[in-house]
Order: sequence, then structure tokens, then C-alpha cells
Amino acid sequence: MMREPYRIPAAGLPERVTIYEVGPRDGLQNESAIVPVEVKAEFVARLAAAGHRVIETTSFVHPTWVPQLADASELLAGLERVPGVRYPVLVPNQRGLDRALEHGVREIAVFASATESFARKNLNRTLESQFEMFEPVVARALDHGLTVRAYVSMCFGDPWEGPTPVGQVVAVGRRLLDLGCSELSLGDTVGVGTPGHVSALIEAFGGPSRLAVHFHDTYGQALANTLAALQAGVTVVDASTGGIGGCPYAESATGNLATEDLVWMLHGLGVETGLNLESLVETSTWLAAKLGRPSPSRVVQALGTAPATDQDVKE
Amino acid sequence: MMREPYRIPAAGLPERVTIYEVGPRDGLQNESAIVPVEVKAEFVARLAAAGHRVIETTSFVHPTWVPQLADASELLAGLERVPGVRYPVLVPNQRGLDRALEHGVREIAVFASATESFARKNLNRTLESQFEMFEPVVARALDHGLTVRAYVSMCFGDPWEGPTPVGQVVAVGRRLLDLGCSELSLGDTVGVGTPGHVSALIEAFGGPSRLAVHFHDTYGQALANTLAALQAGVTVVDASTGGIGGCPYAESATGNLATEDLVWMLHGLGVETGLNLESLVETSTWLAAKLGRPSPSRVVQALGTAPATDQDVKE
Repeated sequence: MMREPYRIPAAGLPERVTIYEVGPRDGLQNESAIVPVEVKAEFVARLAAAGHRVIETTSFVHPTWVPQLADASELLAGLERVPGVRYPVLVPNQRGLDRALEHGVREIAVFASATESFARKNLNRTLESQFEMFEPVVARALDHGLTVRAYVSMCFGDPWEGPTPVGQVVAVGRRLLDLGCSELSLGDTVGVGTPGHVSALIEAFGGPSRLAVHFHDTYGQALANTLAALQAGVTVVDASTGGIGGCPYAESATGNLATEDLVWMLHGLGVETGLNLESLVETSTWLAAKLGRPSPSRVVQALGTAPATDQDVKE
Repeated sequence: MMREPYRIPAAGLPERVTIYEVGPRDGLQNESAIVPVEVKAEFVARLAAAGHRVIETTSFVHPTWVPQLADASELLAGLERVPGVRYPVLVPNQRGLDRALEHGVREIAVFASATESFARKNLNRTLESQFEMFEPVVARALDHGLTVRAYVSMCFGDPWEGPTPVGQVVAVGRRLLDLGCSELSLGDTVGVGTPGHVSALIEAFGGPSRLAVHFHDTYGQALANTLAALQAGVTVVDASTGGIGGCPYAESATGNLATEDLVWMLHGLGVETGLNLESLVETSTWLAAKLGRPSPSRVVQALGTAPATDQDVKE
């Protein structure tokens, strides 16, 4: 097995991409195993050591909904922050912001919906009234000097309404930016999007400024969609170490885009990430043992196993 | 779960792509299970019924090397050929061509190497002397009115020599075209390539004319690489139903690009394939039971399981 891709740059891509690591939050909250807090602390520390500069660390969503992250306060209280590394935390409401502020969090994320159906099911709000929920949270966070990212979920489609009109996503996103959010993470929550849809959505926003992308690999499209986003100029890509985050409620293992598979492509394209691929693979291998299931990342599957023999490529 | 992608066409792509289905040959030869000939016959029949118009059916490689396909003669003897469907067969040498001709095969494929090391290891030839092996096979096939495709393996790198120089791949490919091959399938046999490498290789050939691409998903790059090939104008893409073909000699399951994941992207991009995705998923689900392991295709994993519930998208 080869341990690193060859670097053959392509024209028209960013020189550098920031990988916004969501494994400790979006990954772990969607695993059926509940991981001890000391394992989470080591996970976050390993990610920083591998070169990550943005690690979404946990969430203050109520533990009734996300028992996997019920230890958010304990994790943050003990977190050893590496200088230069950002540790954003997902915050759903004022109470969550209170707790984030208590723990000295400097960056939060809020979670919005691009569709009426998912707003009702996930947030218990209408598409319109969700903004009333975010407005005071964002305003108070900004007052405290925090940075606020907004996730926009179901940007490509949802299971109830079919394809999400790009104009509707843009309208939701603009409202969030107008509230003072500094970055939108456009999420394909159910993984149905394809590359032309990605290009169309970014174009509808008038370009990649302040946009990040967040793909799930449910239908195997996450990396191809990321390539389309890079070609459209996006420089912030969400990913999860080892591709963890297969939804525990679905039978199939369909988590986030795996950081390692993304890094293989980016380094192959000559795009800098600042990340050490070998360290990421080691971390995913270590974490897979804790989670009790193999990593869905192809790179981890390839590099986490025994070294090559001639027979590996027998035809 | 959504059963079909939304069609949001992208600019600059082919209107139609031919999927060159390699499951019965490249897929099954690299599975550890040996499948009975009647299952293979049904597999090929199902593929044709799903809309495939090119199905690489088997190989006349010696059974010592590929016991999985030792029944090639029996399979071809009983094959019910659907009008309009091509059933190419891999042929390594004169003896293989004899057998192909006996069975009325109208299209063959030969298997070449782009690197010295793999030519020696896989073909027991030098990079140069492999052409002496192909020349009489191709000439005689053409005399009999057959069409000949040439696989070029290790086009992006091999485990011994590092990245394969694009000029070397072009030189090998041109020699094969000069012998009379009508199509080159550029293979990333060990799955290490990235999209810029794909673009560079196609450009080095002077464009996509007579080129097909053949990606393995070892590092998760197969679909992103395919997107790059489509953007460069390639209209023939090799894929394997369900992504079968994980090499039995490697521990990880890293087979061919899965036809279903490719179809999801192509149909989403508005590119026609003539294929019925639901039928392909049914076939992969059926075959996975015969092979005794789940399909590595994400689409098959998603659509082969139970229908959606609201909980599938809980955030």
C-alpha cells in the first residue's frame, strides 16, 4: 500500500483548504457507542497534534436528544487548548450559550434548516420562526466577542420535500449571515446531492465567499461533490476523522465525508491542508477500536492494515 | 431513503456515458468466493435486463491464476445473448483467442501494463516485450472481424516505481492503438490517483478520443476521479455492479468503482446511461447474498436496506 498520494496539481483550485473537523461532535453524536470523556479528550488532542486548526469539540444540545455528548461540560472543563487551534461548540439555544460562555468557548455554531419539514421535525419550528430562535443567541454571542458559524441542513434535498430549491437555501443562508454569522456550512444532511447541484448552489450564492461545505457519504457522492465545491472556489470543507457518524437510526453506515479520504485527494491535487495523514490514520484506527467497528474511510481501511506484499496487486 | 437522485445538470459534461460493466470479470475474479456458473449466467442476464449494453463476461486467463473464472467456456456456451448487448471477454494470449473464437465472441480485451515492474510481475514480460505478446493476438482477432479493447494497468502509479510518468502511459497506449485496438481503458489498478492526475493524463493523450477510465476505490478517489475524466470529455467509464472485486489478497475491501454510485452521480448530473438504478441495486443485493458479504457500494448499502423512517435523518 502507498502511504501518501503523488502530488499532481490541477488548475483552478485553491492553494490551501481549511478542513473543519467535525468528528468529535457530528461524528460521535451519530455513533451508537457512547465514548468516555477521557477518550474524547484524547481524540481532540490527537486531532490537534495531527495538524487540525479547527475542531468542533462538542455540543450543548440537551442530553435527552444526544446522549452521546452529555459530557460536554466535563470535556470542555478539562480541555487542553493548543494555541492557534479553534475549538467551536454547537449551541442550540440561550441555555447552551450560557454553558458555552461559562467554559470560555470562543466560537459557536448554530444549526438551521433549509426546509420547512426538517425545521419542524428537528427544531420544532417553522422555516420562518427558526430565525427568532437564532437571533438572540447570535446577538448575545457577538456581544461577547464570539464567532458564530451557521449550519444549513438539507441544502440539497430532504426525504419529505424532494430537492431543495437553491433559491430557498440562499434565502435561509442570507438571513443567517445578516444575523451576524461569519460562515455558512452548506450541509447535504442525507447525502443525496451530486456535483452539478453543488456548483449551482454556490453560484446561486454569488460565489464561495463565507461558504463551507458539509457532505455525507450516504450515496458515495461526498468526495466528488467536494471536488465540485473546490472548483467553485470553496476553501473550507467539513469532514470527520475516519468518516465516523453513521447515523445509529439507519441500518447502513453512512457517515460524514472521511477526513483521510479528503486529505488524500487534496494532497494529491497539491492543495495544502497542514495535516499529517499518517497521524490521522493512526487516530482513526485507535478510535475504531474504541467504537467497536471499523472505520468507513477507504484510506483508513487501506493504510490501517498490514503493509503491502506483491500479492496485494495480483491481477 | 431517496431512491433516485435529483437531476441538476452541470455544464461541460457529455450528454451520455457508456458504462462498461466489468463485474462478471474484474469483479468476480477478485472475490474470494467462487460463484457457480448458473449464478454467473443469471448475473449477466440481470445486468442486460437492467439496461447494460456492454458486459465484460469472463476471461480466458489460465485457471491456475484465476480459478474464479475457470468456467469461462461453460458460461459462454450457455450464454443467452440479448440483441444490442456486447459481451467482451478478456483474452491473454493466442490460446485464449482460440477459445474465444470457438465460442463466437465478437469482442475481446487484452491486458497491458504501463510500468516495467508490473509487466514483469503480472505478465512475466518486460514493458517492451509485452507488445510482442499482444501483436499476433490483436492481428488475428482483427482478421476475424473482432473488436479489441486494451486495458492499460498501473496508469497512475504502482507500488514499486511510484507515480507512473504520463508520457510513459501515453507511449504504451499509442503502441496498443497502433496495433489496432479500438479503445484504451486507463486503469488505476491500485487506486492511488487523484483528479488532477486524471486530467493531466487525458491531456497528455491529446484528449479523450478512444479513452475509457477504470478506477479502483482503494483510497476512496474513484468517483471524484471519474468526475475529472468526464470533465475532460471521457464518455466510457468502467464500473463493477455493487463495487465487487475487492482483492482477495489484501485485507481491505477495495474493489472497482461501484456501478450504482456512478449511476447516482451521472443521473444526478443529467447524464444518460440507459440504466435502471433500482434493477442494479436489486442485482447487487442478490449477488451479495451469493458472495456472502455486503456490497461495498454506498448506494446499495443505502437502498438495499429498509425504507426510510423519520428517524433516519434525526440530527
